[in-house]
Amino acid sequence: MIPVRILGTAGVLPGRAVSTEEVCAQVGRDPEEVKRKTGIHVRYHAPPGTQSSELAAQALEKALERAELPARALRRIIYVSSIGGDVTAPATANRIAARLGLAGECDAMDLNNACMGFLTAFDLAARSVATGLGPVGIVSVEMSTRAMTPEDPRPYLVFGDAAAAAVLGEARPGEGVLGSAFGNNGTLPPDVMMQNPQLTGQREWMRFLTHSKEMTRVALDAVLTATRAALTQAQVSLRDVEWVLPHQPNGSMLDTMLQVLEVPAERSIRVVHKTGSIGSASLGTSLDELMRSGRVRPGERVLLVGVGAGVSYGAVLYRVGG
Amino acid sequence: MIPVRILGTAGVLPGRAVSTEEVCAQVGRDPEEVKRKTGIHVRYHAPPGTQSSELAAQALEKALERAELPARALRRIIYVSSIGGDVTAPATANRIAARLGLAGECDAMDLNNACMGFLTAFDLAARSVATGLGPVGIVSVEMSTRAMTPEDPRPYLVFGDAAAAAVLGEARPGEGVLGSAFGNNGTLPPDVMMQNPQLTGQREWMRFLTHSKEMTRVALDAVLTATRAALTQAQVSLRDVEWVLPHQPNGSMLDTMLQVLEVPAERSIRVVHKTGSIGSASLGTSLDELMRSGRVRPGERVLLVGVGAGVSYGAVLYRVGG
Repeated sequence: MIPVRILGTAGVLPGRAVSTEEVCAQVGRDPEEVKRKTGIHVRYHAPPGTQSSELAAQALEKALERAELPARALRRIIYVSSIGGDVTAPATANRIAARLGLAGECDAMDLNNACMGFLTAFDLAARSVATGLGPVGIVSVEMSTRAMTPEDPRPYLVFGDAAAAAVLGEARPGEGVLGSAFGNNGTLPPDVMMQNPQLTGQREWMRFLTHSKEMTRVALDAVLTATRAALTQAQVSLRDVEWVLPHQPNGSMLDTMLQVLEVPAERSIRVVHKTGSIGSASLGTSLDELMRSGRVRPGERVLLVGVGAGVSYGAVLYRVGG
Repeated sequence: MIPVRILGTAGVLPGRAVSTEEVCAQVGRDPEEVKRKTGIHVRYHAPPGTQSSELAAQALEKALERAELPARALRRIIYVSSIGGDVTAPATANRIAARLGLAGECDAMDLNNACMGFLTAFDLAARSVATGLGPVGIVSVEMSTRAMTPEDPRPYLVFGDAAAAAVLGEARPGEGVLGSAFGNNGTLPPDVMMQNPQLTGQREWMRFLTHSKEMTRVALDAVLTATRAALTQAQVSLRDVEWVLPHQPNGSMLDTMLQVLEVPAERSIRVVHKTGSIGSASLGTSLDELMRSGRVRPGERVLLVGVGAGVSYGAVLYRVGG
C-alpha cells in the first residue's frame, strides 16, 4: 500500500453554463439527438481572457480550505492540462504558487497526459507524500474552448471548461492506495489528437480521428485492463469496491463502462451531463463530488479508472481513512 | 533516504555541430567576445523534421543498454521538455514508448518545468521506484532551435539542441537520494519566457527578459538555497560531497556557481562549452558524462543542483552504490 490521505478536493466550473440547445443552434444539429447520444445537457465556457492559473488557484484554494490547511503547507503543486497553460515557459504551476502567495519551499511543475493527467498526477502525488515530501496539491485545468471551433462540431458539441483539485497528505492508519496500475499503447491508431502549435505555427484544434464506436471499444478494453491490474495488486474483488469513478468523456461511454464493469449507477457519481467532456478534470470533479457527498464511510474503497488519448490508461484503488 | 539506483544514463547531441563563429556570422557579432562571455564554442542544431520522440527514444535506448535492461522492464516514462513535443495531445511519451516497442504495462507522461524539468523528473522517478513501481525512464529533449530566431540574438547565440536520459531502478543497500529540496518563486520578475502558441495563435520564441547580471544574481541565490536545504536534509557538508553538477546555462554562470559554492572545477563536469545552453537536458548530460567517466567510486556523493525559469530551483544529493 502507498500510505496517503485525500485531505481536500474541489471543482470549479468557470463562466457561463451553455446549454446543448445553444451549441446545437451554432452548428445546426438537433439538440434532442445530441443530448440522447452524448448525455450532455450543459457545459461551461470560460470567458475570454480567463487564465488557467486563475482557475487552478481557485480550485486549489477551495481544496486547501476543505483540507483545513494553509497554502504554505504545500510542498509541491502539479498543474495538469491537455493544452498547456498561461505560458509555455516557465511552468504555469509557478504562477499558481504565486497566486496562492507562495514564494519558497513549494515545488511546482506542469504535467500533460491528456485525459489521464489527473490520475497520473494523483499517483505521483501519492508516491511523493509516501516518501516524506509533505502535502501535494494537484490541479487539473481544461480550457478546451481554447482548442475547439464550431467548424468541427464533434468536439465542439461535447467539450466544456473545468478545473478540479485535490490535496494529498499524510495518511492515517490503514489509509492509502491499495493498487495502482498504469499503462499505455502508442501503437494503436490515434484517436484524439492536437498538433503542437509551436511546430505548425498556428492555433491548433483538438480533433477526434476515430469513429465513436471504435473509440468506445478501445477505451473499454483499456479500462478493463487497468481495473483488473489494480484490483489484482490490491487482491480485492470489484464487488467489494464501494465506489467506482470512471473517466466520463460522454454519457453513453460512462453507461457502457459501468455496464461492462457491472457497477450499478448508485455506486458511481455522474457529472458529465452537467459538465460536458472536461478531459483530465473529469475524474477530479467526480472525486470531489463523491468526497463531499457525505456518503463515503471510513474503510470504504474508491476505484478511479481512466483512459485517454495515447492510448493511455490507469486505475487507482484508494481506501478511505477514518 | 529515498532508496534508488541510477541504472544507466545517456546523452544525444542531434544533427550538426554549429560553431560560435557560424552563429555569430549570422547575427553580426564578434565570435571571440561571445565565446569569452558565454563559454560556448559549439552547439548542435537538429535537422528540420527531427521528432522529439525520435531523439528521446535514442537516448532512452542507450541508457537502457547501459543499464543492461530491456525496454519492456520500464514501468514509467517521463518525457521532459520546455517547449512541448511531437504533438500536444496525446502526451509525446506515448510515442516514445511505441518507438521502444512497448504496448502495455508502461505508463507515459509529459512534464515541463523549464530548465528544472530533468531534476523534477528525477525526483518523481526516485519516489516512484522507492514506492515499488519498478524501473522508470526519464528523458529530456530540448529542441530550442524550434523556439529561437537569429532576429533575437541573445537566445540564438547560446541555445543548442540535446537529449539526455536516465533509467532509475531498485537500490542496492545504502544507495539513493540522501536529500531532495525543491522550491519556486513565481513572484520574482519573469526572466526567461515563452508564450503559449495555442493562446497567441502563432509560433513563439523563448525570450530573455532580464539583464544577464540580474539573472545570475537570482540564479545564484536559488542554487545556494536549494543546495543548503538538500545538504541540511542529508546532514552532509558540501566539503564532503565528491561531485557537484550545477545547471549550465552558460560558462560564466557555471564558473560563478562553482566559485560561490567553493567547488574546484575537477569536482564538477563541464559540458556547456561543447553543447551550448540545452535547458533541462543540461543536468542529464553532465550526469551522463560523470557516470560514464570511470571516476565515480562506490559510496561517493553527487549533488545535482538546478535553477530555471519560474524561478524554479532544486537540489538532489545522491549517494552512489556499489
